[in-house]
Amino acid sequence: MDEPPIAKRLILGDPLASTDSDEHLLPKKRALPIFASDALSSVAYAPQELLLILLTGGLAFLAFAPWVAAAVIVLLTVVVISYRQLIKAYPSGGGDYEVARKNLGEIPGVIVASALLVDYVLTVAVSVASGVDNIISALPGLNPWRVELAVGFVILIVVVNLRGVREASSAFAIPTYIFIGSVGLMIVVGLFQIVTGNPPVASSAQYAVETQSLTQAAVILLVLRAFSSGCSALTGVEAVSNGVQAFRQPKVRNAQTTLAMMGGIAILLFAGLTAIALVSGVHYAENPCDLIGFDCSQPQPSLMAQVSAAVFGMNSIPFFIIQAATAVVLLLAANTAFNGFPLLGSVLARDGYAPKALNTRGDRLVYSNGMIILGLVAIGVLIVYQANLTNLIQLYIIGVFVSFTIGQIGMIRHWMRGIRGIRDLPADARRSASTRTELFGLRKGLVINSLGATMTASVLIIVTITKFTHGAWLVFLAIPVLSFLMVGVHRYYRDVDHEIAMDDHIHFGSTGDVALILVNKLQKPVVKAVDYALAAKHDKTFAVHVSVTKEDAAALEAEWREHRMPIPLKIIESPYRMYASPIAEFVKKYREEHGSAVVTVYLPQYIVGHWWESILHNRRARRIAQQLMLVHGVSITLVPWLLDSSELIYGRRSRALPGDDRAGRATAPEVHRVGRRAIRPAGPPENADAAEPTIPTKP
Amino acid sequence: MDEPPIAKRLILGDPLASTDSDEHLLPKKRALPIFASDALSSVAYAPQELLLILLTGGLAFLAFAPWVAAAVIVLLTVVVISYRQLIKAYPSGGGDYEVARKNLGEIPGVIVASALLVDYVLTVAVSVASGVDNIISALPGLNPWRVELAVGFVILIVVVNLRGVREASSAFAIPTYIFIGSVGLMIVVGLFQIVTGNPPVASSAQYAVETQSLTQAAVILLVLRAFSSGCSALTGVEAVSNGVQAFRQPKVRNAQTTLAMMGGIAILLFAGLTAIALVSGVHYAENPCDLIGFDCSQPQPSLMAQVSAAVFGMNSIPFFIIQAATAVVLLLAANTAFNGFPLLGSVLARDGYAPKALNTRGDRLVYSNGMIILGLVAIGVLIVYQANLTNLIQLYIIGVFVSFTIGQIGMIRHWMRGIRGIRDLPADARRSASTRTELFGLRKGLVINSLGATMTASVLIIVTITKFTHGAWLVFLAIPVLSFLMVGVHRYYRDVDHEIAMDDHIHFGSTGDVALILVNKLQKPVVKAVDYALAAKHDKTFAVHVSVTKEDAAALEAEWREHRMPIPLKIIESPYRMYASPIAEFVKKYREEHGSAVVTVYLPQYIVGHWWESILHNRRARRIAQQLMLVHGVSITLVPWLLDSSELIYGRRSRALPGDDRAGRATAPEVHRVGRRAIRPAGPPENADAAEPTIPTKP
Repeated sequence: MDEPPIAKRLILGDPLASTDSDEHLLPKKRALPIFASDALSSVAYAPQELLLILLTGGLAFLAFAPWVAAAVIVLLTVVVISYRQLIKAYPSGGGDYEVARKNLGEIPGVIVASALLVDYVLTVAVSVASGVDNIISALPGLNPWRVELAVGFVILIVVVNLRGVREASSAFAIPTYIFIGSVGLMIVVGLFQIVTGNPPVASSAQYAVETQSLTQAAVILLVLRAFSSGCSALTGVEAVSNGVQAFRQPKVRNAQTTLAMMGGIAILLFAGLTAIALVSGVHYAENPCDLIGFDCSQPQPSLMAQVSAAVFGMNSIPFFIIQAATAVVLLLAANTAFNGFPLLGSVLARDGYAPKALNTRGDRLVYSNGMIILGLVAIGVLIVYQANLTNLIQLYIIGVFVSFTIGQIGMIRHWMRGIRGIRDLPADARRSASTRTELFGLRKGLVINSLGATMTASVLIIVTITKFTHGAWLVFLAIPVLSFLMVGVHRYYRDVDHEIAMDDHIHFGSTGDVALILVNKLQKPVVKAVDYALAAKHDKTFAVHVSVTKEDAAALEAEWREHRMPIPLKIIESPYRMYASPIAEFVKKYREEHGSAVVTVYLPQYIVGHWWESILHNRRARRIAQQLMLVHGVSITLVPWLLDSSELIYGRRSRALPGDDRAGRATAPEVHRVGRRAIRPAGPPENADAAEPTIPTKP
Repeated sequence: MDEPPIAKRLILGDPLASTDSDEHLLPKKRALPIFASDALSSVAYAPQELLLILLTGGLAFLAFAPWVAAAVIVLLTVVVISYRQLIKAYPSGGGDYEVARKNLGEIPGVIVASALLVDYVLTVAVSVASGVDNIISALPGLNPWRVELAVGFVILIVVVNLRGVREASSAFAIPTYIFIGSVGLMIVVGLFQIVTGNPPVASSAQYAVETQSLTQAAVILLVLRAFSSGCSALTGVEAVSNGVQAFRQPKVRNAQTTLAMMGGIAILLFAGLTAIALVSGVHYAENPCDLIGFDCSQPQPSLMAQVSAAVFGMNSIPFFIIQAATAVVLLLAANTAFNGFPLLGSVLARDGYAPKALNTRGDRLVYSNGMIILGLVAIGVLIVYQANLTNLIQLYIIGVFVSFTIGQIGMIRHWMRGIRGIRDLPADARRSASTRTELFGLRKGLVINSLGATMTASVLIIVTITKFTHGAWLVFLAIPVLSFLMVGVHRYYRDVDHEIAMDDHIHFGSTGDVALILVNKLQKPVVKAVDYALAAKHDKTFAVHVSVTKEDAAALEAEWREHRMPIPLKIIESPYRMYASPIAEFVKKYREEHGSAVVTVYLPQYIVGHWWESILHNRRARRIAQQLMLVHGVSITLVPWLLDSSELIYGRRSRALPGDDRAGRATAPEVHRVGRRAIRPAGPPENADAAEPTIPTKP
């Protein structure tokens, strides 16, 4: 792990030792905002998108809204109960992916994983787009910068997340609770106004829409589409099941309680908001120009903004608090994905389905690579869809329902296996009280998850039918492509493992050992490489210079003599201005003539202190190393040379200044200054290379 | 130099050996189109931009046009004559940069270089924008894709140039000659029509513009602005002076002749086109909506298109030939910059003013890095300025005149020094005939370049005054910034050279030599690293495993015993999931306890056959290497392991398959198969590591 530069440090905070990992476990009250912000914040867009679809048919269709909302709530309840079973059975945090893979096999597991990855991306995109929508509802002047705002927020979330779990949690807890409190208060106040005969009136209540004359089939389809969009309220429920390991002990119990709390709050907010929106007459259209009388050059205020304006008054203090809390909680919802996506990525990497780099924790104990990938893809989606919430919603929740359904089917298998296990017990063991309790538990799980599977599968079919032509085909393309890639990656890792598997009958011997030191100019890094090569006491050690111009070669040979370098210098002619090929040829020929020696090529390597310095240093050494590594019997030894600038960062450099004892002796005790010949101070008797007889000390 | 992948090969062609370099030298008839396309093609926009500025005052101002054009021609003549002197005095191809640096010092040289680099970028942008303009004049339907076309052409030019000089030359010669021939013919036919009393009439002759009432000062400024824009005809003259080394012998004579031919042709085309445009009444406005009667939602046809339509008839075959040749030659003009920019970049890199990577030839013998940078910056400029020619012209030619002027002043210094040298000769030598001829030559040069310097300096002042507020301030910002960077780069290289300069009193010795082999799992690459480390006969050799989980460590230890690995295995505990830091700590402690040993860390390095494979391999080894290189006394030995896939590309792999003699013996004679212990066939007596007594052969 490189020492990161100072700028990275300032943005990301100090690195954390892994011991801190335990302290980073979450108590329930902190876990709720982290894992629940996705599910809770979806009430900010789910009722709006539900009503929007019904409104495309005309005002009369809003009469279906309570029934559609009720169906969503029933579904949400069933899913929450189902997931409590899943958490209990698979607390390791793999969630649906693990359930599918263990119970149904590789392909279903990979499909679930792909679906979840796609939906994590869309969670970020939808939440951020909706958050920006709510900001623009309060501050319409920001409308022209919709996409820029969305992209900026994603970048902000990535940076916050790269800082690690605990800081993220503290920063996120307060606004989530403010959101729950303020929206809850708004619902209570709104219901009170309704009961006391003073119902709130939305600003868009005055705008009518043209009524479409629809066939019965079209009406059913419209209601089902509204239900599909309303189902976006269910997203995020699975987040807890993927994050069980982040809870404090008892992990399962705490996770289950958090999930139940989350489900209850989500249902209350969703039902309350939908009710008040219907009573106050919120009319939210897919195309704002369809609202008769509305100036559609202006942005449409979000449903949340219209309801809070109706209850508390436009531009009142509570209105701004609610808009701010909604926007913040939506942005935090995107954060759920930044917990889930990298975690799932690391699980996939561990299982060999994703690049291993996704299983590498950064120095803040987070899976940095996964976070950066998620951020980049989400930014791409937001730009392509111009941060348009209604278009993004069309892609959303398909992935969630794919993984819900497959996960539930996997759970059915899980319970069935348990029940079969008990059936196979001897008759007396089968009849014991504990077995009966266990069997009851298994059967309960089977019933719950069968119900869940049936319902989520039905919804998946509805969602597919109603959304496919509205843009969801893209998701149906992405999931198999991702699955295919994952299976390919897994095959690759399996093949490589097979290739490099241990084998007692293989041996990489040699009949000699020779060291080459590549020399361009005679400078200190070369001296260091020569001294190191001598210390390793190879059978033969000599310097090699690739000569592009004869003058340079002659000058180097003169210097070599003048400074009495202790090893011979060979000049290799290269009229073609190439470096690596002549050396490769030389090594091949040497090995043909001298038997198959191991050839160690010494290359000085500069270590710099600033990123821009690496632009200024030629990559020639690296390119030579890469080509030489293709030659039989060659290994490359990099001898680091720390430039002055690296001292700023690493606190040391490679050389001593003659006569400067502090710089020299203090940090580099092995630096001696008595000429080129290896003269040592009185030292330990195993002073090896000074006694080495094979090294010529004079040319 | 890495073997490039196949895709690169298909686009760029086979690599060229440097021996081919001589054959790539250019005969005059091929050099003319390469170096002259910039200067010649500028007649496609210079007359247009000259008339455009005059027309902003009103139709009456076109009366100034012949005088302004004459001034441009005089200036062009003087500059061509001046540059013939420069070529003679400095044939090495450094051009103005070299002249300024050698005669005036570092700072003027760097300023000239910066100015030229800026103007190379603008040459690409202006030429491509004008080329696209001429294409759209013939095919107005392409108007909406103006920017996309421009960017596409730049990419095309970059690819063609990355293929190397010769192919580029062949492809470029024909259209340049077609351009000269067809535009020349058009001028002859047009003049004939005028003389025979049947003058051509341009399509825009019918459109009037409002006449402005201007003060006398404003009139003068307008005429000077027109002159400034007309001076864009001078760009590209310096190209020959930078490319003398690309000519065949006698280089100087050939380059001078080519320059003179180029100047003559440019003057004829410029004068002829301006004359016919004036007679035929071409009215070209800065803002097409200023043309009274013109439908300004349509693109304005270029001056070239209007003249050729007037002479040969709109949409006639010669019209399309001329438009096509003009467009192609303008795109080829951009190519001049792709010769000049990378060459100047490599000269700057050689002198230490630019990153050394700019002085690295790609495998097609061209300076690939410079070409890619030029292409990217030009694309950026074209996008920002939306490929608008008139706006881009405002930035153009300032850099050229900065370098013209400083170069000419440098030449004055050059001749003065020569004259002083002769004055300092003894009296008799001074009076010899040869000295007198030489003195005459020096004085002739002095007169010519003094005239050149005076004129170009005057024009620079005019250009600065008339263009500064029209966008040229950007160039006046870019030139000092670039100069500052170049000086900074030079300081950096100087400091590093000083830092690493040879010093007899420095020595990097040690009191021992130990090898560590990093082991994660016991696989073949580890076996290879172990065998190589044993071959090098270090004082001590042992394997190190960083243990993140105890199970893995125990399993590895068991395997290590089971396979009877010949070196001891040390387990380093790492509860923090880190790899590099525990090893670094271990090395530091080891060196404290055992004296300052040289520690060689062996790392297996995978060599893969496809770029995507590198995504799938953990960068952990590289990151460990980078961190360990910061530890005192450490060097890193990379032991390559060629995966199967690399065989596709490099023709070999790292291991032999037991029992498969073809794969084994044929490519890897040093592979033996008699168990872990190093048992050798009857081989040379220096069979070193089998005789090494310090290696334990059994655990």
